Amino acid sequence: MFRKQFLAIVIGVFSLPVIAQRPVDYVNPIIGTDGMGHTFPGACTPFGLVQLSPDTDTIPHNINGTYQKNVYEYCAGYQYKDKTIVGFSHTHLSGTGHSDLGDILLMPATGDLKLNPGHADFSGEGYRSRFSHATEKATPGYYEVVLDDYSIKAQLTATPRVGVHKYTFPKEEDGHLILDLVHGIYNYDGKVLWSSLRVENDTLLTGYRITNGWARTNYTYFAISFSQPVLSYGYKDKAKTLYKGFWRRFNQEQNFPEIAGRNIVTYFNFDTKHNPELVVKVALSAVSTEGAVKNLHAEASGRSFEQLAKIATEVWNNELDHFEIEGTSDQKTMFYTSLYHTMINPSIYMDVDGLYRGVDNNIHRAENFTNYTIFSLWDTYRAEHPFLNLIKPERNADMAESMIKHQQQSVHKMLPVWSHMGNENWCMSGYHAVSVLADAITKNVYKNTGETLNAMVSTSNVPYYEGVTDYIKLGYIPLDKSGTAASSTLEYAYDDWAIYKTALATGNTDVAEIYKKRALNYRNIYDSSIGFARPRYSDGSFKKDFDVLQTYGEGFIEGNSWNFSFHVPHDVFGVMSLMGGDKSFVEKLDKLFSMHLPEKYYEHNEDITEECLVGGYVHGNEPSHHIPYLYAWTSQPWKTQYWLREILNKMYKNDIKGLGGNDDCGQMSAWYIFSVIGFYPVCPGSDQYIFGAPYLPYLKLKLPNGNILEIKAPAVSDKNRYVQSLKLNGRDYSKTYITHDDILKGGTLEFKMSSYPNKHRGLTPDDKPYSLTNGI
Amino acid sequence: MFRKQFLAIVIGVFSLPVIAQRPVDYVNPIIGTDGMGHTFPGACTPFGLVQLSPDTDTIPHNINGTYQKNVYEYCAGYQYKDKTIVGFSHTHLSGTGHSDLGDILLMPATGDLKLNPGHADFSGEGYRSRFSHATEKATPGYYEVVLDDYSIKAQLTATPRVGVHKYTFPKEEDGHLILDLVHGIYNYDGKVLWSSLRVENDTLLTGYRITNGWARTNYTYFAISFSQPVLSYGYKDKAKTLYKGFWRRFNQEQNFPEIAGRNIVTYFNFDTKHNPELVVKVALSAVSTEGAVKNLHAEASGRSFEQLAKIATEVWNNELDHFEIEGTSDQKTMFYTSLYHTMINPSIYMDVDGLYRGVDNNIHRAENFTNYTIFSLWDTYRAEHPFLNLIKPERNADMAESMIKHQQQSVHKMLPVWSHMGNENWCMSGYHAVSVLADAITKNVYKNTGETLNAMVSTSNVPYYEGVTDYIKLGYIPLDKSGTAASSTLEYAYDDWAIYKTALATGNTDVAEIYKKRALNYRNIYDSSIGFARPRYSDGSFKKDFDVLQTYGEGFIEGNSWNFSFHVPHDVFGVMSLMGGDKSFVEKLDKLFSMHLPEKYYEHNEDITEECLVGGYVHGNEPSHHIPYLYAWTSQPWKTQYWLREILNKMYKNDIKGLGGNDDCGQMSAWYIFSVIGFYPVCPGSDQYIFGAPYLPYLKLKLPNGNILEIKAPAVSDKNRYVQSLKLNGRDYSKTYITHDDILKGGTLEFKMSSYPNKHRGLTPDDKPYSLTNGI
Repeated sequence: MFRKQFLAIVIGVFSLPVIAQRPVDYVNPIIGTDGMGHTFPGACTPFGLVQLSPDTDTIPHNINGTYQKNVYEYCAGYQYKDKTIVGFSHTHLSGTGHSDLGDILLMPATGDLKLNPGHADFSGEGYRSRFSHATEKATPGYYEVVLDDYSIKAQLTATPRVGVHKYTFPKEEDGHLILDLVHGIYNYDGKVLWSSLRVENDTLLTGYRITNGWARTNYTYFAISFSQPVLSYGYKDKAKTLYKGFWRRFNQEQNFPEIAGRNIVTYFNFDTKHNPELVVKVALSAVSTEGAVKNLHAEASGRSFEQLAKIATEVWNNELDHFEIEGTSDQKTMFYTSLYHTMINPSIYMDVDGLYRGVDNNIHRAENFTNYTIFSLWDTYRAEHPFLNLIKPERNADMAESMIKHQQQSVHKMLPVWSHMGNENWCMSGYHAVSVLADAITKNVYKNTGETLNAMVSTSNVPYYEGVTDYIKLGYIPLDKSGTAASSTLEYAYDDWAIYKTALATGNTDVAEIYKKRALNYRNIYDSSIGFARPRYSDGSFKKDFDVLQTYGEGFIEGNSWNFSFHVPHDVFGVMSLMGGDKSFVEKLDKLFSMHLPEKYYEHNEDITEECLVGGYVHGNEPSHHIPYLYAWTSQPWKTQYWLREILNKMYKNDIKGLGGNDDCGQMSAWYIFSVIGFYPVCPGSDQYIFGAPYLPYLKLKLPNGNILEIKAPAVSDKNRYVQSLKLNGRDYSKTYITHDDILKGGTLEFKMSSYPNKHRGLTPDDKPYSLTNGI
Repeated sequence: MFRKQFLAIVIGVFSLPVIAQRPVDYVNPIIGTDGMGHTFPGACTPFGLVQLSPDTDTIPHNINGTYQKNVYEYCAGYQYKDKTIVGFSHTHLSGTGHSDLGDILLMPATGDLKLNPGHADFSGEGYRSRFSHATEKATPGYYEVVLDDYSIKAQLTATPRVGVHKYTFPKEEDGHLILDLVHGIYNYDGKVLWSSLRVENDTLLTGYRITNGWARTNYTYFAISFSQPVLSYGYKDKAKTLYKGFWRRFNQEQNFPEIAGRNIVTYFNFDTKHNPELVVKVALSAVSTEGAVKNLHAEASGRSFEQLAKIATEVWNNELDHFEIEGTSDQKTMFYTSLYHTMINPSIYMDVDGLYRGVDNNIHRAENFTNYTIFSLWDTYRAEHPFLNLIKPERNADMAESMIKHQQQSVHKMLPVWSHMGNENWCMSGYHAVSVLADAITKNVYKNTGETLNAMVSTSNVPYYEGVTDYIKLGYIPLDKSGTAASSTLEYAYDDWAIYKTALATGNTDVAEIYKKRALNYRNIYDSSIGFARPRYSDGSFKKDFDVLQTYGEGFIEGNSWNFSFHVPHDVFGVMSLMGGDKSFVEKLDKLFSMHLPEKYYEHNEDITEECLVGGYVHGNEPSHHIPYLYAWTSQPWKTQYWLREILNKMYKNDIKGLGGNDDCGQMSAWYIFSVIGFYPVCPGSDQYIFGAPYLPYLKLKLPNGNILEIKAPAVSDKNRYVQSLKLNGRDYSKTYITHDDILKGGTLEFKMSSYPNKHRGLTPDDKPYSLTNGI
């Protein structure tokens, strides 16, 4: 049903010639807005602070203490199935598994003034409006829809720090604009700590609000300009506010230019009878209203909506222009849309003058770098950041610098775990920022200084962070100390390898020695009797009644032992040995991809559904993303080629429901792009990418250094998914990996594809990728 | 009963030789802490940001929607009658009629940890402690008390931006320190919008809280240093906070250095068994924790408690050292304590690096001035600011500049009405900042620029401010538009005269003409048939059933018509004429001071009690403060001399209950100092001070320009209260006023006092003070 509607929209979006020529024309932001993708359809610029997008619902996390299951659906504020739009808010997470943001909502309206949003299913009760997907257009940096209840055409575009709205009101109707400072995603009662608004003059507002959401303390300052003067305005405060001035003597409710409170909904009336077009520019800042005004002037003042929309398109096209590919229309759409999704988060978190809010809540000036936030590192260290190292090294260098500054400003002296608008969310586990830094250093993207190693070492020794004290003492986190003891032990061991790698690069052999030892700590929780990772207690004993398939209660975070046991990307030969050697390792991999995993093993986990499984392999969540590539270390590397194409075909579709799981701030999309190209960074921090097989017959990678890497696999198809042979710049290439330096040199990778595997390729020790040890 | 206790304390305080020699030794901060004075006993520096003082109770403004009458008692957080101390908080208003502040409370304790304050009357339920006034010592910049429940000696001192605590714990007891981020004065549930704390290391905390109290949005950042390391710490959050991190995996309740929430009470444990002395330095900032740390280092680091306490004493002594007087011990105590009370508010509102939070909530840098807040202008324009023009011109110039900056940052483009920690409180009426500016310009204290006049004109034309649109259109505020229409009309007329005066000084005759006309608007609400001011409706008719004695519902704010009708300080001859001429005017004055005013006329007003009345003249509230001096314009100037001494004797006593009304940020005290000297600025903005009579036989005024004015009245006594004759520098002086320039020249004023009046002095037209007109 949705598929049919969706086709209609595609026609709507692509009103250009049938075969569009530019990367930007292939992108369809609607992909992933139905179901699990948690993407948003609205307008933004690459890595911008502003993501201006329609919200269709904003379920609070819990109501009267009861957890609301479908809050999970609304992480990005929009679900395709919904029939009404509440309004257009300015901040959205792209693909996360937790809701937040949705700051500063605008909604145009006509007729009787309504100051509450109403219910999703009952249009007319509140200011929200019904809409039809037939009127919806979404392209990078542009979104359009008709609000049916008001016959208002809404058009949105953005600059990095400014959301730009154009509302065309029906003729002969008085128009209002609602500015709802209560609205938010994850909007429980009390999320808004305070909000404040000043009507500076009849075309300029400034203000701010502070929220306690998933971002513990989120400061959103704003400056809003109107293209026509406000005639009158007012507000409603839905919460008790103690002091609002001496009411008895003058009216502070209507046309009084200073408004503040906990739950403020404001309205502004315009003479849309005579001037039906209203352009509204909303600049954000985390620093101050002064900063928001500067951002407004620098990025959006003096330009029409149409000019700004055109700029947004051009900016996106330039940012996306790293590839030329051959493929079907669906493949091109999926490819460029995935590429688009790798460039939404992380987000710029800094005013045009360089001021930004640090995790210490002080205002800092970024010297010679751009400050970023939204680091969903448990997800993005795997492929998103390595992908940026490959095609956006300058941005990733700034992200690395942002992490170092975070560490210096952190009271814990820790690199970010989940950096969210000047907050540490502590979301998920590990200290994977060290992986991002190590990878950027290995690939010469980020300068290596002693400061970096110090930040890594400090991060990995915070005694109160999950199990770290025991981990250092015992070599593993005991299950009696943490419910996710086993997975965190595995994650720390890999992270410690990243520190080891950086210490080596820094020439600090003492530190290297310590972290090499820590990098092997994964061994302490393998039970060789079953050949899987298995949590241990403080007394050294393994957990009894252990189920390697069960996701809950077995010591692993969002995954079972069967998946997590493969999480030793830095020492694959080592873990292979623990699992019983090559044969046993391959058998476990084979079984992982081919088993049937009954629902009882994952039914309570939002991140694991039948749609995101290939056998027992969970693609919709991150811990397993590298597993298909692990055959490279075994006697049967060709199996990677088989399973990758299964995963690519099942999990990524040009469809509103096209994503097999949360996009997770670009991680799912970066995995896709790498796997379509034909290689993947299994172990970030090493300089190797492990080969799968090209997904498309031709792909040209325009490297940031100006070199070109062409990847040719003319015969490839679902049937011809196997690599018979490979040539790099005309010479036979038998290794199962390629190095970063070789890629940067550019040239040609020519794959000879066929319908049957070449079972003899990549088997010599020289062909094998890096492993810290050769086994035990 | 209290009197007796008080004497005991006086002995305690003055452990110096019986006859103290220095101004600072005469000050008794306890005066006014019982009853209506609303002063606080704690430690501060002159005009400092920090007022570190014990709080005995903090009644919320209303409980379950019911107004709590005794909230009024706790404007400064302390009432002498109370038996327990909750703790020591860092910000207090001095003498206001509205509660607020009480930010950042510390309380030392031993024994079982308690994280709630408990009830005032039941010590032991919470962390509060009983105390005895016998252990209390209070001098400028120093306070000391023993907390009986814990046997802890608490000593307090301050720098401008840092509160300094020294706690001496009993031997062999484990000591805690409570840092209560919920506590505040006017502390209704929900006042705290957010608070945040970081334990930077074992001797430094930083943090902030944001409150919605009387100051609508008050940002208090802090940095707290300990003289010994914290052993362990933790907190309790009394309110639901949504996101606090991933609790399931590590403990964020104990020894976790990042704490945030709505209702946080924290505790810190110290090894006081081995080190019983704990010095705590608490620096405040309205800008950032970074600013607070700077303030801490600049003002308090590297100095012992004893050194800082000594500095505070010296700073006060230097600041107070403008007078030498002869008088009784009580008179000296009252005089220097009043002088002390003129120098607490306004308060510095700026970090040591010049950054401050503006009323636009942006952070600004003060260029070449010190930024101040706490402008209770309806009170302080009368005598406090003129007093500062006389003895602290540099400070008042900076205060004027702070007001101009406020105007420029205000969305209303208005000068402050009640400036409160970067907020406009809109408290009371008028736009009296124009009076402060005009007075400072007239007296060459503040540079006169076109900017100043523009700010005044802008302020007086804000259409939505109480009745201004009608006032401009009709020449008065109609009662159907405002419940305090008559008093505001009177206040605006005077304020408009101040603008007229400034326009003249600026040479802007066009503006002068407009405001001269507006200055006569008071005439529009006089009913010549009764000889009193009387509110009118929009249709021009006077209010019917009008009672000139009633405080409520008659169109006047906190006063009746009989008092308020005299509020035309700029055109006394004009109002005299409206009242029926000299005879009638004098009769009305006489009756005002001698009538019996039944309680029914003021019973609902907290600012008017029997104690603050002289006849029907209300000294405890401000609108009448100039009235005793109005005889100067009449045929019977000597009556001023009689009534002043009545007022001085009744309203100001060296006693805990020594103030006849709220000190109102120094206004009551400034009135006292002027009236003791012998003259008073009836019409700020003119250069004239109107003579009363000296209260003391000898007073030396050390002027800021280095000149000395000696005031001699050797024969003065309650009996000899009348001025027979006066010589200025040896020459007969018959005028009823003296000019600012004459005072600045220094010299000697010699009063010949007697027990009977000289009814012939000051009667010629040349002897009479300024009046805009000579009547009508």
